Amino acid sequence: MTDQHILSAYDRDLEAIQALVMKMGGLVEAAILDGAQSLETRDVELADKVRQGDKAIDALELRINEEAARTIALRAPVSKDLRTVLTVMKIAGSLERIGDYAKNMAKRTHVLAEMTPINGPDAALRRMAREVQGMLRDVLDAYVRRDAELAEQVRMHDQDVDQMYNALFREFLTFMMEDPRNITACMHLHFIAKNVERMGDLVTNIAEQVIYQVTGEIPDEARPKGDITTSVSKVE
Amino acid sequence: MTDQHILSAYDRDLEAIQALVMKMGGLVEAAILDGAQSLETRDVELADKVRQGDKAIDALELRINEEAARTIALRAPVSKDLRTVLTVMKIAGSLERIGDYAKNMAKRTHVLAEMTPINGPDAALRRMAREVQGMLRDVLDAYVRRDAELAEQVRMHDQDVDQMYNALFREFLTFMMEDPRNITACMHLHFIAKNVERMGDLVTNIAEQVIYQVTGEIPDEARPKGDITTSVSKVE
Repeated sequence: MTDQHILSAYDRDLEAIQALVMKMGGLVEAAILDGAQSLETRDVELADKVRQGDKAIDALELRINEEAARTIALRAPVSKDLRTVLTVMKIAGSLERIGDYAKNMAKRTHVLAEMTPINGPDAALRRMAREVQGMLRDVLDAYVRRDAELAEQVRMHDQDVDQMYNALFREFLTFMMEDPRNITACMHLHFIAKNVERMGDLVTNIAEQVIYQVTGEIPDEARPKGDITTSVSKVE
Repeated sequence: MTDQHILSAYDRDLEAIQALVMKMGGLVEAAILDGAQSLETRDVELADKVRQGDKAIDALELRINEEAARTIALRAPVSKDLRTVLTVMKIAGSLERIGDYAKNMAKRTHVLAEMTPINGPDAALRRMAREVQGMLRDVLDAYVRRDAELAEQVRMHDQDVDQMYNALFREFLTFMMEDPRNITACMHLHFIAKNVERMGDLVTNIAEQVIYQVTGEIPDEARPKGDITTSVSKVE
């Protein structure tokens, strides 16, 4: 009877924490989309909204960590249950970092708003950001449903984002070589592209946490790495 | 008597975990220095050593997390003791990310080895990396000695690294505008500079964790932010 009672108290705690994670995930998804849109339309007001919104994301991470610590202290979960609580903290940490990248994207809107627009990369960046937001939506779904297969699909999907990044990297080099006046804008756009690529990596981390939680095993390194800009010696 | 026994078992566990953190910190410090040196001297062999060495760093993080989880499960620490264990996990997470940046720096040695050297930025990058390694050494010291004051000094020191980054950003723009053949190399060097700046941010995170652990309070945002490249509208 006592065990039953402890178990369900733990379950209730966990459910409450997971609800916070989903809320945090929703805010981060919105930040990615708004950040990308503010950048494409040079919408400084929307960019400010994203920057302000990041505080709520940070506050949620702090609260999730506190609730998780409280649960560990009160319920003393072991093995799989402990893993579940630790996973929640890891996922919240990844979400917070994705939110930071979205904020950074919004920040650069201000800088880019005063430069000549470079149209091709802008649209490509938005597509990349949409891709990552879709991956995040799916991985949160996988997390709630404890669906390791869906998490694995998200993980494999990350190479598409990496390929989009590689294509953009080449595009930026071309723009800069064609006209030195493009250099400063391209440096900023390149940064944003790399940050979106990193968001994809963080979503992949979350997918791996979900797989670990469901199966008890961390997926091996078999995932194909798509960012080849650190290994190619010449970029045409 | 029982309390005494539980307390000292917890203390022993914690000491063992902290020893692992210090070991991890030592490996990360070495990775920063070796990564920066491999880059400056275009030493591909040393770069490979850094890349290989990152596996040991990752393995240590995993082990620290496992030991911390085991301690929480076995000893069910509360309040300050629980905070101490959670702090250890956060610090290990930051160290792992710093190690990743060092690995990334080493990776780009291969790419840069095939390009014309650009001497000024190379030396500046190494100085920046040394600065961050010094900060990491101090913050690990502060962690072991529970020295919130030293941690605060490290935290304030981060703006020097940020200023070094700003100076480099401008230098890269100049090099690229002067000669388009510098563009590809500068894109890579700029990335590395930004990654070193991020290492500094992560060391600052560790400093804040140390302060939190000692004082129970997370430092406010008063820390002066030094990376101004996202907020300046024109970079001369």
